[in-house]
Amino acid sequence: MNNFLSSKAAAITPYTAGAQPVGSGIIKINTNENPYPPSPKVFEALSAFDADRLRLYPRPDGGMLRSAVAAQNGVPETHVFCGNGSDEVLGFAFYAFFDGNILFPDITYSFYPVWASLYGLSYQTVALNADFTVAADALYGGGVVLANPNAPTGIALEPNAIEGILVRNSEHVVIVDEAYAVFGAQSVIPLVQKYPNLLVVTTLSKSHGLAGLRVAYAIGQPHLIDGLERVKDSFNSYPLDTIAQIAASAALKDTAYCTQTAQKIIATRERTAERLAELGFLVLPSKANFLFVTHPRFAAADIKAYLEQNSIFVRHFNLPRISNYLRISIGTDAQMDTVVSCLIKLLHKA
Amino acid sequence: MNNFLSSKAAAITPYTAGAQPVGSGIIKINTNENPYPPSPKVFEALSAFDADRLRLYPRPDGGMLRSAVAAQNGVPETHVFCGNGSDEVLGFAFYAFFDGNILFPDITYSFYPVWASLYGLSYQTVALNADFTVAADALYGGGVVLANPNAPTGIALEPNAIEGILVRNSEHVVIVDEAYAVFGAQSVIPLVQKYPNLLVVTTLSKSHGLAGLRVAYAIGQPHLIDGLERVKDSFNSYPLDTIAQIAASAALKDTAYCTQTAQKIIATRERTAERLAELGFLVLPSKANFLFVTHPRFAAADIKAYLEQNSIFVRHFNLPRISNYLRISIGTDAQMDTVVSCLIKLLHKA
Repeated sequence: MNNFLSSKAAAITPYTAGAQPVGSGIIKINTNENPYPPSPKVFEALSAFDADRLRLYPRPDGGMLRSAVAAQNGVPETHVFCGNGSDEVLGFAFYAFFDGNILFPDITYSFYPVWASLYGLSYQTVALNADFTVAADALYGGGVVLANPNAPTGIALEPNAIEGILVRNSEHVVIVDEAYAVFGAQSVIPLVQKYPNLLVVTTLSKSHGLAGLRVAYAIGQPHLIDGLERVKDSFNSYPLDTIAQIAASAALKDTAYCTQTAQKIIATRERTAERLAELGFLVLPSKANFLFVTHPRFAAADIKAYLEQNSIFVRHFNLPRISNYLRISIGTDAQMDTVVSCLIKLLHKA
Repeated sequence: MNNFLSSKAAAITPYTAGAQPVGSGIIKINTNENPYPPSPKVFEALSAFDADRLRLYPRPDGGMLRSAVAAQNGVPETHVFCGNGSDEVLGFAFYAFFDGNILFPDITYSFYPVWASLYGLSYQTVALNADFTVAADALYGGGVVLANPNAPTGIALEPNAIEGILVRNSEHVVIVDEAYAVFGAQSVIPLVQKYPNLLVVTTLSKSHGLAGLRVAYAIGQPHLIDGLERVKDSFNSYPLDTIAQIAASAALKDTAYCTQTAQKIIATRERTAERLAELGFLVLPSKANFLFVTHPRFAAADIKAYLEQNSIFVRHFNLPRISNYLRISIGTDAQMDTVVSCLIKLLHKA
């Protein structure tokens, strides 16, 4: 029946997002959500919001949110683009800056090849090193998109390695996707003034506990921001609703709260990593709010199934090189204790 | 400096949205916003909203909003797609269903050619008749996109004329954009079961006073909805935030309020149209929440400038055939009285 599909739409393979199980008592650590509520300032902003404002179109450029992003990051507003989640911002960036010949690691955010195929752009993957670190030197000769920390490995590159990529690909845009940077990687936003080809993309989904609000931003020099605006204005002039703009601004301004929750998550991550290592797991050194782990004696798919029987949801990617790994988002200490206890039961049963 | 722009991005001409002037005392009737606040149910839904829910990703398919749309329109949920404003929904539809050879009137929503060019799709415009009605018979031999009522003319086609377009283009998708239908046009949603090539797109921006919330939907048979989901999932899995889903659901369920405000706007439109006609304006017969008018003795650009000096903002399109017309959104009775008084002053001064 779908002879109505365009040839392009028929050819694409959509991204598969993590499942969104609901139910009381479940531990949902499969999509890297923040276990802590958003800043109290978000609650205040929403209570103070007058729904009458919804009559009018929102500010197409993000308005007060754009100012808040600029202030938080110490850049002028002309260096800021706001969008509907980092997926939208990255989608616009692929269209705005790439003519094909896109480079990214073979193991990374699996939406990158989807945007390339959406726009009919060629890409080439560069194999991670054997230890799953990014082979920075091999990202050479095209536009680059790099998650830092990388997903689903959690491993981060140092800024000097990213500078190398920027210098070696100075005629192409290098997109650094910092969705998880707040959990331990060093942001390259301070390098934006130095490199006209650097675009840094950040989302509030994980760092600010706002996955449900769909707010992200990009920081780069004005010619890159103009390129993003150009594409946005050819697709959807107003992707960010007024409430999202206001709530996200409130969250951004509460730096202390964001830092405090990120520190709690980092502490829980380190504690969980140690306990999983004690259970025989190989745990990659994560700078993100998740751990990427494998066990020498248990198949990842079996562990995932066992956890699911116990209402614990983690993510498994059935992809080359990582099909025996699980990605476990970091929840609260109590949640992670339950996860570890459940894994102990499985391991001792066998 | 913008040698970083892709060849595609360099080639597109973005859509220009209406200006968004702010300030107390202004009369903003330039972007077809609803002069009345959203339903009281929206205020209630927002007060009851627990910001803690924002931690988690929203339902990727619109969740309860999708159910509400289905219930309101008497179709199964499989017939409903929810998106971030009708611009996003239309943008996805162009990608999903058109391979080029797109047909639309020469005078219509000026975003249609922008989406075509965004995806590199050819299109052909079909001239409106001399009285600015759509030449339905001439929309033949390709994919069709049709605003009904048309914008910026406000003139509507009857369902039987749209059936003719559906039958004559049975191998192509026909998109009917009903952004303004609530103000007097007859919706073709009841035809969806009969025509596998019909996709109806509706936004809550105008009908429900929710331009600031960015919520729209499409209704069509499941193979068309699957096509839209396919494109969405290749661009941004979660375009609608949780608050927007909830607030829009509340608005949709309050049919009585929507009908009541639409009736008020229709009454104000008819009253304003009569008064403008008395002042010598040619007023096209509008079924939308705006009037498209021209005056035999005054240039549209001059009228617009005069109104603006008096803090009244209307829309002028400097385009072939309509450069001497103004599009005036319908505000409250009091606002339209002010507009008419201001025009009387201008006309008598001359």
